[in-house]
Amino acid sequence: MTATYQRIVLAGRPQGWVTAENFRLERVPVPVPGPGQLLVRNHYLSLDPYMRGRMEETKSYAESQKIGETMIGGTVGVVEASNNPGFAVGDTVVGVLGWQEYGLSDGSQLMKVDTRAVPMSAYLGAVGMPGVTAWYGLNRICRPKPGETVLVSAASGAVGSIVGQLAKQAGCRAIGIAGGQEKCDYVVAELGFDACVDHRRHGDVKSMARALREAAPDGIDGLFENVGGTCLDAALACMNPFGRVALCGLISGYNGQDISVHNVRALLVSRLEVRGFIVSDHMADWPQALTELGRGVATGKLKYRETIAQGLAAAPEAFIGLLQGRNFGKQLVKLA
Amino acid sequence: MTATYQRIVLAGRPQGWVTAENFRLERVPVPVPGPGQLLVRNHYLSLDPYMRGRMEETKSYAESQKIGETMIGGTVGVVEASNNPGFAVGDTVVGVLGWQEYGLSDGSQLMKVDTRAVPMSAYLGAVGMPGVTAWYGLNRICRPKPGETVLVSAASGAVGSIVGQLAKQAGCRAIGIAGGQEKCDYVVAELGFDACVDHRRHGDVKSMARALREAAPDGIDGLFENVGGTCLDAALACMNPFGRVALCGLISGYNGQDISVHNVRALLVSRLEVRGFIVSDHMADWPQALTELGRGVATGKLKYRETIAQGLAAAPEAFIGLLQGRNFGKQLVKLA
Repeated sequence: MTATYQRIVLAGRPQGWVTAENFRLERVPVPVPGPGQLLVRNHYLSLDPYMRGRMEETKSYAESQKIGETMIGGTVGVVEASNNPGFAVGDTVVGVLGWQEYGLSDGSQLMKVDTRAVPMSAYLGAVGMPGVTAWYGLNRICRPKPGETVLVSAASGAVGSIVGQLAKQAGCRAIGIAGGQEKCDYVVAELGFDACVDHRRHGDVKSMARALREAAPDGIDGLFENVGGTCLDAALACMNPFGRVALCGLISGYNGQDISVHNVRALLVSRLEVRGFIVSDHMADWPQALTELGRGVATGKLKYRETIAQGLAAAPEAFIGLLQGRNFGKQLVKLA
Repeated sequence: MTATYQRIVLAGRPQGWVTAENFRLERVPVPVPGPGQLLVRNHYLSLDPYMRGRMEETKSYAESQKIGETMIGGTVGVVEASNNPGFAVGDTVVGVLGWQEYGLSDGSQLMKVDTRAVPMSAYLGAVGMPGVTAWYGLNRICRPKPGETVLVSAASGAVGSIVGQLAKQAGCRAIGIAGGQEKCDYVVAELGFDACVDHRRHGDVKSMARALREAAPDGIDGLFENVGGTCLDAALACMNPFGRVALCGLISGYNGQDISVHNVRALLVSRLEVRGFIVSDHMADWPQALTELGRGVATGKLKYRETIAQGLAAAPEAFIGLLQGRNFGKQLVKLA
């Protein structure tokens, strides 16, 4: 009898909110690696907001996901069989093997990682793509100087939590926006931000701007934007002259909601710099970023939190929850 | 009998469109220069969109103009009397002496200019603040490479006309947006742009974007934005990945019109860079810019057009016309 494993494919494109019907769980035979190939047993799957964009047929920064294909996704796992001299059975590897329990690879997009000081799952979060995203946007776009103020939205999330902690380490005042008192408390008490504003209590631009001014009395110099919409408009109103905005995500508009920026005048009046970015465009920065992030996690200076769904079948619901902000910290799925 | 001269002061703040009632013409005695001072007879007054911002009480990048004070404005004129060793009677000087026929100065904000190869009035346009604005936004923000496409709105204006000509000289395809067939024809036939889109024929984003795609079949790499609103949204839809947007003005919103950017997603998807700027923040670049612009005008390689109102009393009407796009090229007022 052939061994089988589970994978999840895109069954249909979402109309507005993603639903469970957009996915299909399939059982398929475990493949046998060919020449130069290796077989990885995935232990964790990473769920990230960018996947929502891939589910659309419209133009995004990457190709859209095809119907019937395994959903894209970052993974960390252990090599079970290898015909590739670069990888041995037992190696822990990070890659993009998708929403599935096993993955076949020629090794070209895999990275061996050391799990002695950094837990395996962290390579999908603080010491992985989200961490490097935070590092790049903060250091290369926000470019904060000691004494300046940095604001990040989705502050308790995989990216936002790192942005604020790195900003603090750079000598800045770090301000967050998060959804709900529990997340805000965590951001301040656990992550060490100076303040965190609950966007559920400030639904309009005016109210949010007032709260931000209170949290950032000297104004905002660097804005790391993950959300867009009301948060962004309010933050623009509080930016200091020559402020920098790293535009990383617009999660508030993923279902087609209006995410217009109304306060365009602030860009001119305050001479702001806004840069949209995708971390995969900047591979040259990954080694330095991963080294610094790995050291931070290994020494306990960089904290992070995970929400872990159990088993591949739980992935769709966990992803839907992520898009609605129901996760707390990095959303993972444990596969093995 | 004491000699007198005319000046125009801000009489009241505009509610929406600027009206003639916002200004008051006054006659005052010609001052006698004190120690270190000099008296300038202004020959030309420059009218520029930024003045609209100064008339507001709300925060702009500069202090708002006080009621009853002489309107701010760039001027070029000739020294009539001098107690300042740096300036002699007969010197031609550029400065910011305001909407008035005479101005007193301590010399600190005046620049002596050579009118042998460059006409006096050009120092308020192509070889003055508007020219340097074009130079800075294009070279420092749009940073176009040969073969790329640059789009500029208000393309027949004092700034836009220079942007496109400098882009052509840099080996780019230059595309303009202007209001009306006559201006568009001028932009292409006289200034040498590759194409110009008439915004009056494309009132909505969709229609404008279609026209821009036709004019810029390879997409837009550098956008020099003077207008905002529909033009900006349409242009964002046509930007190539890693495009640069120099945000110089938002003239479409000067009377409180909605200038929201709806296509915020383009900033992220195309990883755009947007920078608002004010040329006076970048004085270090002025000498190089003025040298290059002066050479361009002196050799006839840089063309420009002027609309000249006669006499100070005509300034308010000319300024109102400028805000409505009734001028053609650089708007000046001849004072002497």
